[in-house]
Formats: sequence, C-alpha cells, structure tokens
Amino acid sequence: MRPQIYLFGDSITEESFGDGGWAASLSHHFSRTVDVVLRGYSGYNTSWALKVAERIFPPVESGGAPPLAVTVFFGANDACLADRYSAFQHVPLHEYKQNLQSIISFFKKRWPETVILLITPPPIDEEARLRHPYIENPSGLPERTNEAAGAYAQACISVARECGCPVVDLWIKMQEFPDWQKAYLSDGLHLTPAGNRIVFEEVAKKLKEQGISVENLPVDLPLIENIDPQDPLKAFQDY
Amino acid sequence: MRPQIYLFGDSITEESFGDGGWAASLSHHFSRTVDVVLRGYSGYNTSWALKVAERIFPPVESGGAPPLAVTVFFGANDACLADRYSAFQHVPLHEYKQNLQSIISFFKKRWPETVILLITPPPIDEEARLRHPYIENPSGLPERTNEAAGAYAQACISVARECGCPVVDLWIKMQEFPDWQKAYLSDGLHLTPAGNRIVFEEVAKKLKEQGISVENLPVDLPLIENIDPQDPLKAFQDY
Repeated sequence: MRPQIYLFGDSITEESFGDGGWAASLSHHFSRTVDVVLRGYSGYNTSWALKVAERIFPPVESGGAPPLAVTVFFGANDACLADRYSAFQHVPLHEYKQNLQSIISFFKKRWPETVILLITPPPIDEEARLRHPYIENPSGLPERTNEAAGAYAQACISVARECGCPVVDLWIKMQEFPDWQKAYLSDGLHLTPAGNRIVFEEVAKKLKEQGISVENLPVDLPLIENIDPQDPLKAFQDY
Repeated sequence: MRPQIYLFGDSITEESFGDGGWAASLSHHFSRTVDVVLRGYSGYNTSWALKVAERIFPPVESGGAPPLAVTVFFGANDACLADRYSAFQHVPLHEYKQNLQSIISFFKKRWPETVILLITPPPIDEEARLRHPYIENPSGLPERTNEAAGAYAQACISVARECGCPVVDLWIKMQEFPDWQKAYLSDGLHLTPAGNRIVFEEVAKKLKEQGISVENLPVDLPLIENIDPQDPLKAFQDY
C-alpha cells in the first residue's frame, strides 16, 4: 500500500482538484509515491471540523494506516465577521485557537508519527468580496475583511509554534506580491491557478523539510528507465 | 470511509493529475463522494501490468475495501511496433487480448461487484512521434503507428464485449474531431488538456451509465447549503 497524505480543510481544500488546483499538483508531484486524499468541506469552520474529525479519519485499528502527513487548512470561515451575513460561520478568535489545538491533539493521539502541517487562511480582497457575495448583501459591507483574516492567520501560526507543527503562512506569502488581489484570488477569497500554485509550492517545501519528498520515498514499482530493454521481465521477477 | 475508484494504466494514467488531467477532473467531479486513486505506470504494457496487479491491489481481507470501479487503460505501449526502437514494450495482439482478459478475471475474482471500465489506447500522430522520439531515432520511422493503435483498440473493445465490461473507445472518439492530432495529443501519443477533457467526459459518462454518479452517491457530511444558518450545529448533532 502506498502511503497517504490527507488534506483537511474548507472550500479551498475541497476545490483543490479544480483547474490548476493545489491537490492536483501535489498528486501529480507524488504520482508514483503517495496517494493524496481530499477531505475538504466547503463552508466549514474549525468548530464543525472538530465535530466530524472522528468520523472522517478512521482509527488505525479499523484498517486505516497512519498517513505520512495531514494538512489542516481552516480559518477563512472562522474569520467571517460576527455581525455580517456569514455570521453563522464565524468562530471567535480564542475558540478558533482552541479548536485548532484540539484538532492537532486529535491527530497526534490518532497518528503519533504523522506530520501535521497547518496552513493559514489566505488574505481577503474586500472589494472582490462585495462583487461576489454568497447571498444578496445590501449592507455594502464585506462579510470578511483582510484584517480579520490576518488575525486568524496569526493565531494559526502561534498554535503551530506551541504545538511544534510546521505551518505555511499563506496570508503573508500571498501579500508579498503587489497584485495579489487579482493574481491569487478569484473572488477575493478562493484561489486562482496562480494562487493554487503558491499553496502547492509552499506545502511541498514544508513536507520536504519534514523528510517527505519524492527523493526520500520509495517508488511504487520499477520506473521505465530502470527496466532493461534487453530483458524487461527481469525487473518483475520478484513480483 | 469514502468509496474509491482506481485508475490502472500506463503513462496516460500516471500523468493524469497534470495540467487539465483527467484524474484531476474526475477527483474534482467526485470531490465530496469518491476517492480517485492513481495506479498509473509509465511505459507499462499489459504483460508487465499482469505481473504486478496482485501487488498493487490489496485483497479485501487485508483491509482494502472493494472499489466502486477500476479503469483499465493499457494498449498504447503494447502497440509499439516489434521492429522499431520501442520493441521491448511491444506485446503481440493476441497476447494483449489474453492479458486484458486475465486482468479482468483478476479484478472480477478480487472484487465481484466492481465496475471494470476499459479504455482503448488513443490514436497516434506518427509525424509528431518522429518529432518527439524517446531516444535517438535515425530510422525515420515512428515507433508507433495509428493503424497498430487502432488494431489494439479494436481488440480492447472485443474483449470488453466478451467480458461484459463497459468500454470507452478513445481511438474512435478522438478521431471524430478533424484536428485531433494537435487538439488532443501533445507529442503524438500523450494527451493535451483538451484530450484529457475527452477522457474525463467519456469516463464520467460510462460510470454514470453504471450507476456511479454524484447524484447516486452519498455525500460525505452535510453540504453547506443544508446547514441551517439559525442553528448550524444541529446538522452535526449525530456525529
């Protein structure tokens, strides 16, 4: 059986097999070494994620092998403002931190050797959010702000540090590029192919730092370049 | 646990999480319902595939649940000509048929309820193969021809009919479009994003005919549109 990497998160994870998506890139990158398993749930925040984690991730005893890694990518929904139209998704900042800690504890207990990689929410382009509301929004105010997303990103980083987990600071990383609003975000929140590319590259880099790389992992079955054209079946004599 | 769909094949399967790839599209299509599991092995023919099938696909007793479906997508390498530079990948036509039958028998024995979906090799653009040889090719002759690929495609279809398996006739389907050589093939053999799109659409259509569709499968956890904004946690009270 090939080892697995689980991707646990909200819509930015659920949509990551879409056009130029970061799960697709990760699957392609590890195409002969790792199975990338999508567990993205659009709209979910850390409170809902915590309710369902037990059900989503099978205990090792029931046949599920521990994965090499799991990405935990929540916060974009938690950071919805409490007094705007997406308030039902809002989770207070201190509760978001506690929830992230509980999610990490859950994974550490279930899979002590698994790398838990946190990803902060991306930055928010408020103007684009006003142009792309989920529902009619006569208030003229966006349901998310970049400042709030930044506070949740900061909280995510501090939880990662406390728990000794690697973390991708997507909120900062994306804003390093001047035109990040248009280059990386399709509707002020979700990712363009270029935005997805950044997530893929940062996740692959962090995994590599943890020893999870194509170079370090066993290849599933002989590569064509290692099959002797004079005697191809020799490569398969042990199977 | 979510049900799975395995993709078993050669490089056209191995590369199918690449740009616009058909595995990525299939994973995106089934993002809340099915795990798409890649088992593509570049350069492999049906003889090699048969040697390793037992090792790739875990017996149900060892914890692997039977998948909903498996795609079997071989023939492009079997159809390499026996007197050209890729002869070591060549498998004679009658042996290709026998191998496909054996692969189907293997899956039917292992997973009696699983849909086995065959896919024929794609057509070949011989001029492009001469421009994109794997190794130096001073012969001026391509290592694959469209005629040979067509014979293997025809054999694949007849095996599918004998065994009662659904089949995607990619060889015919792609050639329905006048500019198929450039539109669907990147190097005369492998697929462009548009070529990948055809594979995805045909595979999704055949799976749907077999009852495997987003409409028919249970969604993993409540969708955001089914969560009551007035009382979101109600949706999770049974978890």
